[in-house]
Amino acid sequence: MSTTWEHLAAEKRGRIDKSIPSEWKISKPTQASVMDVPANSGILSAEELKITESTATDLVNKLAKGELKAVDVTLAFCKRAALAHQLVNCALEFFPEAALAQAKELDEYFEKNKKPVGPLHGLPISLKDQARVKGIETSMGYIDWIGKYETSDSVIVTLLRKAGAVFYVKTSVPQTLMVCETVNNVIGRTVNPRNNNWSCGGSSGGEGAIIGIRGGVIGVGTDIGGSIRVPSAFNFLYGIRPSHGRLPYARLANSMEGQETVHSVVGPIAHSAADLRLFLTSVLREEPWSYDPKVIPIPWRSQEEEETKKKFKSGGMNLGFFNCDGNVLPHPPVLRAVDTVVSTLEKNGHNIIPWTPYKHDFAVNMINGIYAADGSTDVYRDINASGEPAIPNIKDLLNPNNPKIDLNELWDVHLQKWAYQSEYLSQWRLAEEQLGADKTLDAIIAPITPTAAIRHNRFKYYGYASVVNLLDFTSVVVPVTFADKKVDTKKEEYEPLNELDKEVQEEYDPEAYHGAPVAVQVIGRRLSEEKTLTIAEEVGRLLGNVVTP
Amino acid sequence: MSTTWEHLAAEKRGRIDKSIPSEWKISKPTQASVMDVPANSGILSAEELKITESTATDLVNKLAKGELKAVDVTLAFCKRAALAHQLVNCALEFFPEAALAQAKELDEYFEKNKKPVGPLHGLPISLKDQARVKGIETSMGYIDWIGKYETSDSVIVTLLRKAGAVFYVKTSVPQTLMVCETVNNVIGRTVNPRNNNWSCGGSSGGEGAIIGIRGGVIGVGTDIGGSIRVPSAFNFLYGIRPSHGRLPYARLANSMEGQETVHSVVGPIAHSAADLRLFLTSVLREEPWSYDPKVIPIPWRSQEEEETKKKFKSGGMNLGFFNCDGNVLPHPPVLRAVDTVVSTLEKNGHNIIPWTPYKHDFAVNMINGIYAADGSTDVYRDINASGEPAIPNIKDLLNPNNPKIDLNELWDVHLQKWAYQSEYLSQWRLAEEQLGADKTLDAIIAPITPTAAIRHNRFKYYGYASVVNLLDFTSVVVPVTFADKKVDTKKEEYEPLNELDKEVQEEYDPEAYHGAPVAVQVIGRRLSEEKTLTIAEEVGRLLGNVVTP
Repeated sequence: MSTTWEHLAAEKRGRIDKSIPSEWKISKPTQASVMDVPANSGILSAEELKITESTATDLVNKLAKGELKAVDVTLAFCKRAALAHQLVNCALEFFPEAALAQAKELDEYFEKNKKPVGPLHGLPISLKDQARVKGIETSMGYIDWIGKYETSDSVIVTLLRKAGAVFYVKTSVPQTLMVCETVNNVIGRTVNPRNNNWSCGGSSGGEGAIIGIRGGVIGVGTDIGGSIRVPSAFNFLYGIRPSHGRLPYARLANSMEGQETVHSVVGPIAHSAADLRLFLTSVLREEPWSYDPKVIPIPWRSQEEEETKKKFKSGGMNLGFFNCDGNVLPHPPVLRAVDTVVSTLEKNGHNIIPWTPYKHDFAVNMINGIYAADGSTDVYRDINASGEPAIPNIKDLLNPNNPKIDLNELWDVHLQKWAYQSEYLSQWRLAEEQLGADKTLDAIIAPITPTAAIRHNRFKYYGYASVVNLLDFTSVVVPVTFADKKVDTKKEEYEPLNELDKEVQEEYDPEAYHGAPVAVQVIGRRLSEEKTLTIAEEVGRLLGNVVTP
Repeated sequence: MSTTWEHLAAEKRGRIDKSIPSEWKISKPTQASVMDVPANSGILSAEELKITESTATDLVNKLAKGELKAVDVTLAFCKRAALAHQLVNCALEFFPEAALAQAKELDEYFEKNKKPVGPLHGLPISLKDQARVKGIETSMGYIDWIGKYETSDSVIVTLLRKAGAVFYVKTSVPQTLMVCETVNNVIGRTVNPRNNNWSCGGSSGGEGAIIGIRGGVIGVGTDIGGSIRVPSAFNFLYGIRPSHGRLPYARLANSMEGQETVHSVVGPIAHSAADLRLFLTSVLREEPWSYDPKVIPIPWRSQEEEETKKKFKSGGMNLGFFNCDGNVLPHPPVLRAVDTVVSTLEKNGHNIIPWTPYKHDFAVNMINGIYAADGSTDVYRDINASGEPAIPNIKDLLNPNNPKIDLNELWDVHLQKWAYQSEYLSQWRLAEEQLGADKTLDAIIAPITPTAAIRHNRFKYYGYASVVNLLDFTSVVVPVTFADKKVDTKKEEYEPLNELDKEVQEEYDPEAYHGAPVAVQVIGRRLSEEKTLTIAEEVGRLLGNVVTP
């Protein structure tokens, strides 16, 4: 008698449950927001609470001086991650014993050599369940993959390990990774720690949730259509979608592996831009281009960072902005967030100009076609292998009866994409010409989603995020505000742009969204991580959203 | 009555012929080598001969100081290019009037502003007939494309124009671009100026031939499997195949447009490494990444160049080498060239270690599969559109009855390629570990083809060149020597590695190849243009092959 998929899933859930020591167990909470539970649980000591509420930058500084021990930091985050999982259902793998053993080795190294192994010495880092860690399973939310134990690390894991990071948890993803909510048939749905009626975003939703509730300080996500940025936005976090080729993706598990028309990229999610920088500089220091042939040999360019900071401090930025892409108008809280950023920047002397989204409708259609190019053969192979059903979001998005495009059609898509990207650059140059001699357009401020942290099963429109993927631009999320029913009233007598816009507008309910996090993205040109991250950091500083302990 | 393809080709040949003023016409030569004809033709003045035998670096220096006029330099190269075409049949387009008009404008600018427009002010640059030039046809050797006049420039042409370059000729290519000899049904075969029994190489064969006989000083070629390097090697020239994304390919015409599994790249061919550098720095100065989204924003890294030069001068290079890839053993002149380079480097104190070609047989099979991935649908569409036949090399290589691979199969190829590239990097790291702490393997010396400049219709094996394309490594050709019947005797009692090797070995004839140019390639890791070019330049300097006027 063959094992049913439900049985396999239950068994795996049991294993996750067993990985949490009984002394870290709590009773299921009943309230919508669980943000305060860790502090009140009695499971973390005051010191452990302080550790988990620090920045990564502070932690690595203290670890490097011997003021903190890797074991203590790891234990604190293991405890808080255990709570996080019980509260928001975010872990696909939890391995505190291995983590503590790794931390112990690092402490021993420090004891013996009186120096850290690298810039992340003793820092726990949480991993989306695409990252392969030797000895640990990678199911990526597919029932069929349950029981696949890894014999080696993904390249990013290897390099983080060399830099001194400790691994302790791998977080949940939506089945197939191709949607911006986090539901699979292995553990079900991951919810937003601020309100269990809201999504934590996706596909790096487990990371968004665990970092949001500080069960982790830096999380590793991936992004092919918003999957780093949406969870960052929905959990009031910073996140960076680097351009393809900046960080090593080699040997990460993935759906539609080998699809290279639009690349998924890997990047960090954290509470501050400084912690994102710590991650990027630490990985680049290991020269990832010597391990992953897709990584471009560009070390961290401190000079660009310095120049950008200087220009920002002088009030001399030229920034574009848009609040509507012409397809779907964002909800009032998102419009207000863009307004807030624009007016704050203007007040600080920067030159903010309207940016006309260039053919975003065309781009959204193109990228949707790319996601479905193989008639969803690849994802349904992995879904069907176990007999599990497709989750509702996937049923809506990926139809297995759609045709697979042929190779010459794909080549046409490549040409169209290249032409579109070229035209977008022309628009950028045109804007610079209009700004005047030798002026640069430094970045563009835009929404990431049309909604604040969304209610479950309502995610309809990926275009604000996915056009950036098609362009392969660098994008950094800056948390801005929270939806407020008193100011973000529903638009009356709005004439929808189209059927989809109508659906999205109808979803807005000031009461239901009250308190939901809202962010913007700072979009820079391709491979502009240093500059774009610096702008995002300075925007956050002006907003007062630098760190939110 | 419809026009036959033969008629269209004849008409086009007539137009090319008419583009040469009668006072530049010469009678058809009968000798095998035409290298001396320009100097003895009486068509160029002594000053014009001197100009055409200068380096580009010298010319732009003099043009920038007003010591030379753009019109005089352009006229000299137009005359010599006209001779070149009559001697080796290398031009698909020749437009001296437009060139002289462009040069006149540059002279007027200089007169008025007392400064050059850019670093290439007044320098004629020849273009492979993939480059689009406003107002000029692009046939690319396809009969069906005859009469396609361009309304705008390719990006590289735009940027070269901004830098001050003058365009006067577009050179021949093989039908489809996919072979390393230069034959099409429009103008027939381009031959090697050193011996009309030898190929000029391909697919940038027109460039190899015209630069070889100094009808141009820098030529623009492209390379997807050796197409810059083979013509450079066969004409005793330097050439660089930059990694994908270093120089702008946008809006160049191409076969199999949109095929992005292995990218064709654009790069220069010249008589010296210094002239290649002049080209690269001049294009990068225009920030091509603002025009072509595929270009990576890396300016010319002078520091890497300086560091490499310093390390080379100190005799501290660690270089790998191989003379056989395990598939096909090169002919004796090529083996001698590799030996010469190795022993010269060793004599100068460098550390030269054997490199074991890693699974090159696998790589060659993979890239051949990629070239044919669409069942040659694309190329036969363009061939068949006019009714012209496929040239013999193409008939051998691309079978229209081969199946087209499907999208999921392509994704598998992408994964295999990525894994192979990763394994190659592992081999590189392993070699560095064996070298010892903090040592880098700086480059690898290898053959480009198994033969010296080859006899017509004998090109069989692309693997020495094409594996570099699959790896997307940077490669620079260094001319080394000439085949010599007295020393390069035929191997007796050789046991062939396989059937192809046997065929290639049988082709060697010391008499027929006597005097044919032989080169090696210096292979650096991806996007290592500054370092690899510097090594190539210094190798050339040690060999005494810096410039060959």
